[in-house]
Amino acid sequence: MTTKISVEEMEAARNRTSSLIHNTPIMKSDKINDKVGAKVLFKCEHLQKTGSFKARGALNSAILAKEQNAKGVIAHSSGNHGQALAWAAQKIGLPCTIVVPKNAPNSKVEGMKEYNADVVFCEPTMSSREITCAEMAEKLGYYYVDPHNCVTMINGHGSIVFEVLEQAGDEIDSIFLSVGGGGFAASVAFLIGNLNPDIAVYLVEPEEKNLANLLENGVQCASETLNTIADGVRVSHVGSLCEPILKKYCTRTVVSVKEEEIKEALNLIWTRTKQRIEPTAALAFAGVLYHKPDHVKKPLVILCGGNVDTDYVIN
Amino acid sequence: MTTKISVEEMEAARNRTSSLIHNTPIMKSDKINDKVGAKVLFKCEHLQKTGSFKARGALNSAILAKEQNAKGVIAHSSGNHGQALAWAAQKIGLPCTIVVPKNAPNSKVEGMKEYNADVVFCEPTMSSREITCAEMAEKLGYYYVDPHNCVTMINGHGSIVFEVLEQAGDEIDSIFLSVGGGGFAASVAFLIGNLNPDIAVYLVEPEEKNLANLLENGVQCASETLNTIADGVRVSHVGSLCEPILKKYCTRTVVSVKEEEIKEALNLIWTRTKQRIEPTAALAFAGVLYHKPDHVKKPLVILCGGNVDTDYVIN
Repeated sequence: MTTKISVEEMEAARNRTSSLIHNTPIMKSDKINDKVGAKVLFKCEHLQKTGSFKARGALNSAILAKEQNAKGVIAHSSGNHGQALAWAAQKIGLPCTIVVPKNAPNSKVEGMKEYNADVVFCEPTMSSREITCAEMAEKLGYYYVDPHNCVTMINGHGSIVFEVLEQAGDEIDSIFLSVGGGGFAASVAFLIGNLNPDIAVYLVEPEEKNLANLLENGVQCASETLNTIADGVRVSHVGSLCEPILKKYCTRTVVSVKEEEIKEALNLIWTRTKQRIEPTAALAFAGVLYHKPDHVKKPLVILCGGNVDTDYVIN
Repeated sequence: MTTKISVEEMEAARNRTSSLIHNTPIMKSDKINDKVGAKVLFKCEHLQKTGSFKARGALNSAILAKEQNAKGVIAHSSGNHGQALAWAAQKIGLPCTIVVPKNAPNSKVEGMKEYNADVVFCEPTMSSREITCAEMAEKLGYYYVDPHNCVTMINGHGSIVFEVLEQAGDEIDSIFLSVGGGGFAASVAFLIGNLNPDIAVYLVEPEEKNLANLLENGVQCASETLNTIADGVRVSHVGSLCEPILKKYCTRTVVSVKEEEIKEALNLIWTRTKQRIEPTAALAFAGVLYHKPDHVKKPLVILCGGNVDTDYVIN
């Protein structure tokens, strides 16, 4: 299995996956431009297969696992990662098991089953998830796909950067994305840093995370999970593979936002663009809406996903 | 002012308006195709200016009013029509007054004010709306734009048909749309009937409306307003200009749906396409999802609007 994060591996991953994933569209809104005072582009990963960017890395991981004769793929997840891996495995005809904490929302579990994954429940703690997953991976001969700290995921996510540069490379001076476990952020920061370092990559976080203190001073966030409506980035710590990349490219581009700002950003996107993005996607836009540095004139916001329950209300 | 509904007037209206309105995209979803068992295309009018197709006819009406030296435009509305006319008038620099029933949702009123319309409140009855509007139109010298029974609105809406035929004319065998006052339905039915009569135009209604009984037997719906979650089509009667057109082209293509079916259709669109359409747009899709005739293989659904409050919940 690939062990290196590199531009070449990211190119290979893009070629490997592009026929099965969407080259997602870019949207804009005059009303939002007026409000922000800049030309904002939105990269629509909520319109990606399975409703999030995770499909990119998951498909790359599943294809490589199959090439290496793994008997299947396995991950622990309560949400988007599990759905994406289940979809990817089904797409290429590989068995898939997802270890799910037993308090996970039923809608997510149903999503995984719809893609024919075997769902195995565990206790709702990170250690139970990890132990159950490791034991089953060993027993079944499945390739374990970590949602954040996984080379094949990180290389797979890079396809979004190639798309963005082709679609709008000349129209942007920065990229704003929501940061959680750091896999996606590391992928984008690494590839932009290598292909077009003039574009700044901003990592937008719920303020409790305080990633700047880790990247600048090596101080970890005290909480293990964050208390935020952005449920896709509740994991407070970034993966060990991701940390050095983020340190290199993004030490001075961390943006912390308040919960109220996420809600306002979500409200504005729902109202103005009619796109049902999830709160974690609104987090990235909140970074632009409330904390855009003055010299940023042409930000691109990655709307990372759209998996939000139909009865979800902003309040 | 134009008094004729014709292909030529619709072409002229398209040319008159196309630089200011969106040629809205067409979307599709594999999951929805699987569920319906047909290739379904969605014409995204919720992404139109002001969030509904009404912008098409409203802009045509405002431009023609200005050419005829009207001092402004006026309409009564509690929702999309008022926002669309206010936007159109502002766009071309014409004053606009909207007469609003005093029980209208505040979010809609704010929308109108945002486009600089003068908002005048009246009693929440149709007669109060009409009388107030007529008196003010006379006093101010403004052109009155009826939401449904108005030649300039009907001709203006036709631009959507030219777009659909250019975008997907070879890929569809039918068009499903939600019918309320009948102006939009008449526009689409008339233009398709003249340009490509092989494409069937289906009128989807809440079952209480029973439009087939009007078109086949001349029997009007007993209620004045319908009790439906599809708030854009609560008006039960179709306009006198619209009725003969619908009788000619759509007598056998009325589709009645139940409230539960609208909710399920809305749920499916929100979940699968991540598009925050309004319930009235889901009505048209419910016609396909639950009542598609077997011989229909390639339906296009017009998603008429996306103006739904952020705290709206399907229940």
